[in-house]
Amino acid sequence: MLWSGWGDPAKASDLPGPVRKLLEDLLGVRAPETPAADLAEIRPPAPALPPAVLDELRAVIGPEHVRADDETRIRHARGRSTPDLMRLRAGDVSGAPDAVLLPGSHDEVVELLRVCAARRVAVVPFGGGTSVVGGLTADGGVMERYAGLVALDLARLNRLVAVDPESMVAELEPGLRGPQAEELLARHGLTLGHFPQSFEYATLGGFAAARSSGQASAGYGRFDDLVVGMTVATPRGTLELGRAPKSAAGPDLRQVILGSEGAFGVITSLRLRVRPAPRVRLYEGWRFASFAEGVAALRRLAQDGPPPTVLRLSDETETMVGLAKPGAIGASASGGGCLVVTGYEGAEEETRLRRERTAEVLAGLGGTPLGAEPGESWAHGRYSAPYLRDSLLAAGATVETLETAAFWSGLPRLYDAVRLALHGALGSPLVMCHISHVYATGASLYFTVVTAQSGDPLAQWEAAKHAASEAIVAAGGTISHHHGVGRDHLDAYAAEIGELGVEILRGIKERLDPEGVLNPGVLIPSD
Amino acid sequence: MLWSGWGDPAKASDLPGPVRKLLEDLLGVRAPETPAADLAEIRPPAPALPPAVLDELRAVIGPEHVRADDETRIRHARGRSTPDLMRLRAGDVSGAPDAVLLPGSHDEVVELLRVCAARRVAVVPFGGGTSVVGGLTADGGVMERYAGLVALDLARLNRLVAVDPESMVAELEPGLRGPQAEELLARHGLTLGHFPQSFEYATLGGFAAARSSGQASAGYGRFDDLVVGMTVATPRGTLELGRAPKSAAGPDLRQVILGSEGAFGVITSLRLRVRPAPRVRLYEGWRFASFAEGVAALRRLAQDGPPPTVLRLSDETETMVGLAKPGAIGASASGGGCLVVTGYEGAEEETRLRRERTAEVLAGLGGTPLGAEPGESWAHGRYSAPYLRDSLLAAGATVETLETAAFWSGLPRLYDAVRLALHGALGSPLVMCHISHVYATGASLYFTVVTAQSGDPLAQWEAAKHAASEAIVAAGGTISHHHGVGRDHLDAYAAEIGELGVEILRGIKERLDPEGVLNPGVLIPSD
Repeated sequence: MLWSGWGDPAKASDLPGPVRKLLEDLLGVRAPETPAADLAEIRPPAPALPPAVLDELRAVIGPEHVRADDETRIRHARGRSTPDLMRLRAGDVSGAPDAVLLPGSHDEVVELLRVCAARRVAVVPFGGGTSVVGGLTADGGVMERYAGLVALDLARLNRLVAVDPESMVAELEPGLRGPQAEELLARHGLTLGHFPQSFEYATLGGFAAARSSGQASAGYGRFDDLVVGMTVATPRGTLELGRAPKSAAGPDLRQVILGSEGAFGVITSLRLRVRPAPRVRLYEGWRFASFAEGVAALRRLAQDGPPPTVLRLSDETETMVGLAKPGAIGASASGGGCLVVTGYEGAEEETRLRRERTAEVLAGLGGTPLGAEPGESWAHGRYSAPYLRDSLLAAGATVETLETAAFWSGLPRLYDAVRLALHGALGSPLVMCHISHVYATGASLYFTVVTAQSGDPLAQWEAAKHAASEAIVAAGGTISHHHGVGRDHLDAYAAEIGELGVEILRGIKERLDPEGVLNPGVLIPSD
Repeated sequence: MLWSGWGDPAKASDLPGPVRKLLEDLLGVRAPETPAADLAEIRPPAPALPPAVLDELRAVIGPEHVRADDETRIRHARGRSTPDLMRLRAGDVSGAPDAVLLPGSHDEVVELLRVCAARRVAVVPFGGGTSVVGGLTADGGVMERYAGLVALDLARLNRLVAVDPESMVAELEPGLRGPQAEELLARHGLTLGHFPQSFEYATLGGFAAARSSGQASAGYGRFDDLVVGMTVATPRGTLELGRAPKSAAGPDLRQVILGSEGAFGVITSLRLRVRPAPRVRLYEGWRFASFAEGVAALRRLAQDGPPPTVLRLSDETETMVGLAKPGAIGASASGGGCLVVTGYEGAEEETRLRRERTAEVLAGLGGTPLGAEPGESWAHGRYSAPYLRDSLLAAGATVETLETAAFWSGLPRLYDAVRLALHGALGSPLVMCHISHVYATGASLYFTVVTAQSGDPLAQWEAAKHAASEAIVAAGGTISHHHGVGRDHLDAYAAEIGELGVEILRGIKERLDPEGVLNPGVLIPSD
């Protein structure tokens, strides 16, 4: 992974000419004056961790699994939000951990947490490092309250532990990245069906801890739907959850750890629902005259089911720009209106029937079939948007995404409110939106914002993000459908769950992590 | 509701001759020597609640909504487990509350809880009073630790507040009994589709607080699946949850209240997913040669979906006795093997397709179609088993149910373990089992036990229940799939979630109910 950007450096590409021209003409984007920082030339801050504690940690997992070199520390300093990238590109690695720990087993994680709690060392659990909500950067106050800061990198917990083909459950370790997990499962003819945009780099542990939702959620469900059991390491020992798919034995404690973002414990094993690898994968495009008509069609599919495996509706602006097909942006072959991408994965006959039924509903509600091209083009470019962001940042544009969800009847108001807030804060940004996760009772809204940088680009974006978050809270949406809370959503999250909701989190935190060493500053507002 | 039994006294019936003979010949059941207690002749214990506190409570909701007469107190003393009924029939109403409070609004509930916390009065939230796990009886230590005990009866919170037809969400109050809720929704052409055996008496609040699962769960899902939002009153104020169907904003706090059995707060409003009332309702029967073959067929339907709306498999013993058709027990028309009941509810075309597909799968896996009769007969008698229990108790037999769930691969071991434990504890009981809730990864097991009473029938059953619970824990099942924890499952539940799981509950309890007045002794093991 690029240290200050996304993915494989070999896949980075310059912006196509038409896009560059669009940015200049439409948004007034100008190339930045200062070049991005060079990894070789920046240094993380002097480590605070006492050498004796470092030795204690080395004794637990072996010295070769404790890294304190500059590059490793820098690579664990931040996530992959646009503010993260802006800071990295400016050479700001102030959040870098003092050391990176690479445990090899659940017991080692428990022991590391015990030592860190005893020595008051803050611990940031680290999976793929792809958080876009500030989930990986301990707060500025950490150095005062703690003796040091370590990242707990789960990369070595990367096994497929067991497959239970009868129950269609697989036990997998949290450090597996998306493609690694899929490859291991493919040998058994199985799939998780979880393909978020971060798929290539994010890990299973991160998917669970941050309640990820994949592009095929209409068919396979969210990641939290797939989790039937988990093992969790905490500073006070082990938590083992999930004896049955569903239970009436008290609150569902799995749902307390899902979304806990490393603040309650470290997930060291996951029992996940798996499915047969699909024999067929088909993607198509449809056009609707307006976003409202498209929304009505998606709602019908979500409520009457079974929906397609992939279901995505771009609004007019996103359709015009062609964002659903990053490889062909600016090609403007959309013909106006709003693009719907439908995907069908599964066994032949079942897939055929689902596709027929979906086509019938879409056509009946005013949709025009566009054939396979727009769908296949979307599928081809499904993981490439983050690369595009790096190119846009380099060209002097700010680009960032934010997302929310609400019940169907509240979506139009939420959509308007967020767009209004972003326009109010940024002047004339390009604001695009799509729906890519639907439920019987509601759906998500995913916004992509592009704007010319002006003044301090970080402060400029943070003001816009603040305005958008306030609009989401006021319009009754949730502050995140699948990105999580981290530090960036802390205030809006507290408003969303209210004082007593925050008290629930504090009550749990106090019992599982009494010294408060786990991911401080994330998820739980300080007292 | 009968004060010491089930349901409408007019519907009570004597045991049919063949059943009585079966009990005598097979199990050695003899008529009890002492008749059941008479409501008019028993008295609850003297109330402990100071009159000044009672006046304070009266001031909140009006004196007409605070009841302290003997009959009302007795009717709120216990739930409807067999031990509850045995105690009531013996005239033991020691758990009766000092008073019964009937608030009329959320704000009144909040205020009552505030007063009770300030005065250290224990509060048992009371919906339909149908708990079968001791969820309604405060523990024996209550009188020492508290100034008194009140039941908070939610019967007056019985409105359909709003319908959002676009989102297919209805807001309903928790005191609505199943049929009341369905009647109100039917006026809008809607249904919840939640039909547990307790349907006629249990309330929506109880369904949520105890994670109920209905007989049509294969099609409509569990009750917790239907809850998209809720308002909760606690001694510290109001908790408002659920801004979207799904969210990545932290742990799903709805899942903390669902299953909390009144120990964290009182649910005063529910936003529930609703569906169009079905146009078609069809039930059929199938026969499989063995339970194992039936299980394999159910698993196939659950994993390949879409499953029927109702899916129930009786084991050999339950099939032989004919328990799936309480109106025809002993008629012995089953022809051996194991009975499967399938039900299909929905729109015409969709229902027809689902039925065809299910028939194909069942026939392909060795099932023999039995036509509509066994299914319709099941549907006809679906709520009558609790009436049968009263007749059996009167005849001198002990009958009780218990249930669990596990992943598919663990079901056979769990099934054997529970049966072995019950036989070990009771000698030669009749142990019947069915599966009525299926998931892609596992299913529930529901046992019905009938035995002759010997010695102290209560102690006899409690020993058997203890053995069965230990067997469930040891075999890796959950202690309850849809009955809940209450007081009866406290030890097994603590073993299931472990020390840190219990700590999570304590941490939440401490923050929402610092004085510990809510349903003491239920759900959370004492320190």
